[in-house]
Amino acid sequence: MSNSFGKLFTLTTFGESHGPAIGGVIDGCPAGIDLDLEAVQSQLDRRKPGQSKITTQRKEPDQVEFLSGIFEGKTTGTSIGFQIQNTNQKSKDYSHNVDVYRPSHADYTYDQKYGVRDHRGGGRSSARETANWIVGGAVAKEIIKGIKITAFTSSVGEIFIDKPYQELDFSQIEQNMVRCADPVTAEKMIEHIGEIKKQGDTVGGTITCVIQNVPIGLGEPIFDKLHAAMGHAMLSINAVKGFEYGSGFCGARMKGSDHNDLFNQDGSTQTNLSGGIQGGISNGMDIYFRVAFKPVATLIQKQDTIDAKGNKVEMQGRGRHDPCVVPRAVPIVEALSAMVMADFYLLSKAKSGL
Amino acid sequence: MSNSFGKLFTLTTFGESHGPAIGGVIDGCPAGIDLDLEAVQSQLDRRKPGQSKITTQRKEPDQVEFLSGIFEGKTTGTSIGFQIQNTNQKSKDYSHNVDVYRPSHADYTYDQKYGVRDHRGGGRSSARETANWIVGGAVAKEIIKGIKITAFTSSVGEIFIDKPYQELDFSQIEQNMVRCADPVTAEKMIEHIGEIKKQGDTVGGTITCVIQNVPIGLGEPIFDKLHAAMGHAMLSINAVKGFEYGSGFCGARMKGSDHNDLFNQDGSTQTNLSGGIQGGISNGMDIYFRVAFKPVATLIQKQDTIDAKGNKVEMQGRGRHDPCVVPRAVPIVEALSAMVMADFYLLSKAKSGL
Amino acid sequence: MSNSFGKLFTLTTFGESHGPAIGGVIDGCPAGIDLDLEAVQSQLDRRKPGQSKITTQRKEPDQVEFLSGIFEGKTTGTSIGFQIQNTNQKSKDYSHNVDVYRPSHADYTYDQKYGVRDHRGGGRSSARETANWIVGGAVAKEIIKGIKITAFTSSVGEIFIDKPYQELDFSQIEQNMVRCADPVTAEKMIEHIGEIKKQGDTVGGTITCVIQNVPIGLGEPIFDKLHAAMGHAMLSINAVKGFEYGSGFCGARMKGSDHNDLFNQDGSTQTNLSGGIQGGISNGMDIYFRVAFKPVATLIQKQDTIDAKGNKVEMQGRGRHDPCVVPRAVPIVEALSAMVMADFYLLSKAKSGL
Amino acid sequence: MSNSFGKLFTLTTFGESHGPAIGGVIDGCPAGIDLDLEAVQSQLDRRKPGQSKITTQRKEPDQVEFLSGIFEGKTTGTSIGFQIQNTNQKSKDYSHNVDVYRPSHADYTYDQKYGVRDHRGGGRSSARETANWIVGGAVAKEIIKGIKITAFTSSVGEIFIDKPYQELDFSQIEQNMVRCADPVTAEKMIEHIGEIKKQGDTVGGTITCVIQNVPIGLGEPIFDKLHAAMGHAMLSINAVKGFEYGSGFCGARMKGSDHNDLFNQDGSTQTNLSGGIQGGISNGMDIYFRVAFKPVATLIQKQDTIDAKGNKVEMQGRGRHDPCVVPRAVPIVEALSAMVMADFYLLSKAKSGL
Repeated sequence: MSNSFGKLFTLTTFGESHGPAIGGVIDGCPAGIDLDLEAVQSQLDRRKPGQSKITTQRKEPDQVEFLSGIFEGKTTGTSIGFQIQNTNQKSKDYSHNVDVYRPSHADYTYDQKYGVRDHRGGGRSSARETANWIVGGAVAKEIIKGIKITAFTSSVGEIFIDKPYQELDFSQIEQNMVRCADPVTAEKMIEHIGEIKKQGDTVGGTITCVIQNVPIGLGEPIFDKLHAAMGHAMLSINAVKGFEYGSGFCGARMKGSDHNDLFNQDGSTQTNLSGGIQGGISNGMDIYFRVAFKPVATLIQKQDTIDAKGNKVEMQGRGRHDPCVVPRAVPIVEALSAMVMADFYLLSKAKSGL
Repeated sequence: MSNSFGKLFTLTTFGESHGPAIGGVIDGCPAGIDLDLEAVQSQLDRRKPGQSKITTQRKEPDQVEFLSGIFEGKTTGTSIGFQIQNTNQKSKDYSHNVDVYRPSHADYTYDQKYGVRDHRGGGRSSARETANWIVGGAVAKEIIKGIKITAFTSSVGEIFIDKPYQELDFSQIEQNMVRCADPVTAEKMIEHIGEIKKQGDTVGGTITCVIQNVPIGLGEPIFDKLHAAMGHAMLSINAVKGFEYGSGFCGARMKGSDHNDLFNQDGSTQTNLSGGIQGGISNGMDIYFRVAFKPVATLIQKQDTIDAKGNKVEMQGRGRHDPCVVPRAVPIVEALSAMVMADFYLLSKAKSGL
Repeated sequence: MSNSFGKLFTLTTFGESHGPAIGGVIDGCPAGIDLDLEAVQSQLDRRKPGQSKITTQRKEPDQVEFLSGIFEGKTTGTSIGFQIQNTNQKSKDYSHNVDVYRPSHADYTYDQKYGVRDHRGGGRSSARETANWIVGGAVAKEIIKGIKITAFTSSVGEIFIDKPYQELDFSQIEQNMVRCADPVTAEKMIEHIGEIKKQGDTVGGTITCVIQNVPIGLGEPIFDKLHAAMGHAMLSINAVKGFEYGSGFCGARMKGSDHNDLFNQDGSTQTNLSGGIQGGISNGMDIYFRVAFKPVATLIQKQDTIDAKGNKVEMQGRGRHDPCVVPRAVPIVEALSAMVMADFYLLSKAKSGL
Repeated sequence: MSNSFGKLFTLTTFGESHGPAIGGVIDGCPAGIDLDLEAVQSQLDRRKPGQSKITTQRKEPDQVEFLSGIFEGKTTGTSIGFQIQNTNQKSKDYSHNVDVYRPSHADYTYDQKYGVRDHRGGGRSSARETANWIVGGAVAKEIIKGIKITAFTSSVGEIFIDKPYQELDFSQIEQNMVRCADPVTAEKMIEHIGEIKKQGDTVGGTITCVIQNVPIGLGEPIFDKLHAAMGHAMLSINAVKGFEYGSGFCGARMKGSDHNDLFNQDGSTQTNLSGGIQGGISNGMDIYFRVAFKPVATLIQKQDTIDAKGNKVEMQGRGRHDPCVVPRAVPIVEALSAMVMADFYLLSKAKSGL
């Protein structure tokens, strides 16, 4: 079931970039939840293209339609089907790609694995799929209402926020088009992406996510440690190359005497290099992690590549593409985080106090 | 099923550090595989403590006993049960920990989540569990015989190998006690760990893993991308704080024009910043990734902490502990990698050419 | 994932009787299968209501729309989304049921379990869901082309076929409106259902299913024995009260010396009381089983019942209902059988000959 | 994971009849449960052979050893490993079977599927596996303490109890060696089995199981209806050919006006042909079902059969076998029922009242 996500709260998805619709089935959502459909839609709007001069100018309304599982505004405990029509497919933008393998895309591997491939806009490998995740995440958030999940762009290329997240004002994130929590850095990022775009090039970046007000005890060792499931989720996002939580790769350079988080008497810790998770279980401190995105592979530059017969060909991206995917990925990181947290919340409930 | 790993090739484990035994059940291993029990045992021997002056001096024979699923040297296609006796438990080493929460261990979170806890040696949260994984990995390797998996210590604290893996001689790895692929760096690491040990301190590090001779087409998008499953596996290892593959976090600083892997006419790529995986599916190039380990939390130093009642107490590690866990984790990284690869190999077979 | 069916070939469904649409996601279908959309639709047409004077006169076009996973007529190996619009909902037929618990329906249990309930037409508990299964089954059939699955009505009330299936002419099944493989018995059944309908009553019955040309070796002991998975599937159908395969309940009255199936020299057996499965694995002989359906609970008669507040009320079915559900369930039994067989076929492939 | 049972409360098993041990891993058992190890053992003792003159005279102590997951008498929430040594294997009893396919056993299908086979005592296909299930069931019972599960032999060959279960005195069940709830019928059964045994023959029978004090709301439609999961469990037992619940196959002969269970004002029903489950969800009434067992295939008579090369051979059972397996299967039915109920109880908890 490689198109399903989660154990108790699950999302099963379908859809190609240029088919009639994408969508999915949310299973395991408890009954009786007031579902604010406008809130769901507003999350989708955060992800959709065409929001600013630094994102693709492709316009898609991305209107979610719920088909089941909700009655008179409340979830009924049955599976929630939904779909999002693909209304603005310009398949002909991709007609020149029928037999061409775009470098660092999934064209070659899909073709080798499956033998057939919907080449239009990347087909199933397109990031259009992530719109489904936004819907799943928006429903998940209703299950874990007290938990606060905040993601933001923490670096673009070599430009990064050089403050700990505790010093940032999260209310700034949606105030700038890169979704950076630091306004000054945001300006630099926007300028940099603008330059990259002019070059027909793209640039990578990182997203930091902070999860606050987490109940103690979420996570299911040995193989469903909270951070392992979270890493799995983040590594499922298109273009992600790395995941670290708490001290992350920096922690690998440290000594134990510097790294250990000493306890306060109430069980909280004085530092939080653990990143809110110990032994795979949340300890009530903030969970925070960082996700690395490679630069978008589609360039508005000429590139040498091959076609399906192994002939050398020259290609140039002609579609409408993002020079930097990171700002639009911010709500995706939040959505997947919400699904992971909701899933573990339900798992935890199953086993608690008989 | 939080104690199960994998989808078709699965390992389900049990066992606490100081119980009578640890062990597990391997399900989904195809029938007819010649299982070299000595090869399995030799993998376990690579992980076991007491191998050198820089590891814990705890001695455990770690002898695996297979209980089912093998008949006259061949797997029978039925589930393979196995156990490893815990023969050298010095539980009294931990008797002083009954009510003490060790900093940056899982004592506090296990107690909060479950209400009861086997405090001896960390109980279920102990890295002793990883011996089970070695057994699973050794069986998995028999399924994917052509695939070559090599892990090595790539950094300890601030000391790191400053060459690409292609310039390293993997035959050097087992020639030094830190399992570093570069002999000169190995010497520095050993010296550094020796100093750290004298201080009663610990130090983190990273492991790099390279997987070669990979068939094209392994990986099951959307939610079982090969690298996402691999990341999940690696993040399940005790003390791991981060995972990156291919260009990883460095890739997030790059431009697309530098990052894209251009094709050769045979479908291979001129560079391999993708890390052998595109769109979640292996492309036949080397897979490589890096795993970050925090420093071991048990110090042979005095630390302030609290007990289960919230009283301040002072503690000092008295058990036999590793100053740096990374060298012993090398075979663990390989074992989990083998299980992931075997699982995806079987999944791939299920769906190929009707 | 209680709305998902299968392990490798899976169907995840959604939809209420009177919502905008029902549908689902088929995951795990291999790539490269020619999918005959008209054949799928013709299976749906076999199930749809209003086909004859003995079924409900409700008219629903039940037109399936595929939304993904198929490109230029072939499956692509990605998930297949589909939906069936609910076009002929007469919700007001059910408005009198808002707070009434219909006897032997799921109204009471859904209300008790979930607290909220889409009361219109049974909501999620409606047999309308089975239209989704027809779609899943039609796709599954393409995976196991050589295997022949035939179901037929074997009894209605006290009227039953008194011949072994080997003496029946399966080409007769679709020639009569009860889908009985014996024309003479069919006439009696039709007459009986007509009488029952006049009384505003309903009647139960059984379906026999025969699966031929089965490869040897399908089935995954210990807990996914082929017949156990088949039983699970059949017991998932609305109104099913029992499942037996091979000698079934009759076998429980027999002696071993009468029951054992002696071998021919080619491995086939002289008798087949085993029902084509031994130890949970197909042995190449015909698989056959029988499924018991209770009478439809909705009567066009007055019945005493209660409402959600525990008040006594009198009710009478006013919707358009089947006096006997068995004939329309014949393609459903075939569809679920096909999904089970396809799933085990893929599982078997995963593990065979490395 | 074909050797795993359950979704949240899971049992994963291993073991062949004549290997060193059988055993398993129970995952998902909540923490803090007082586990009465003697109660577990006493359940095992109910199943073990050699209890009376009508069962096999094979003697096995069947002593369960718990290896993890329990600390100071309480479950810790971690996985519970256990094993049962095979102490009384008389493998030479089976040496004559190396290449012989016993009729109506799983020898042929295992050999065809896997290519290799542990022929001793049926290997993995032996009912010895069910001892593992007793352990799982005994732990499960601690989770659902208020629910009362009672199974008994309801028929042997043509001899059956002709009273509804409500008129039976369940305290009689363990008072006779066939575990029949009616003492007079028990005598007849015992006499009949004695005669069958003298003939070197075997006989089938049925077990009825009644589950009382069931909470309303257990069961997870659409594909994990309570009775579908229960049927799957029962059909997993060696020699089972059929499952029916509530009115079962009799219900298929009835009219709706006779079959419907009318409500009392408190939501209970005046009759219970539904068998305590409506729409796949428990309604609080007694759950009851019946399981059909074929006669044991091993006869102490000469039978014609074939060997692995297709040669005709004559064979005669020489091991120690049961003439009727039903009495010893009574605790197995209870154990699997307990596991199903515990699993659904935990699933239900996960989703209830946020």
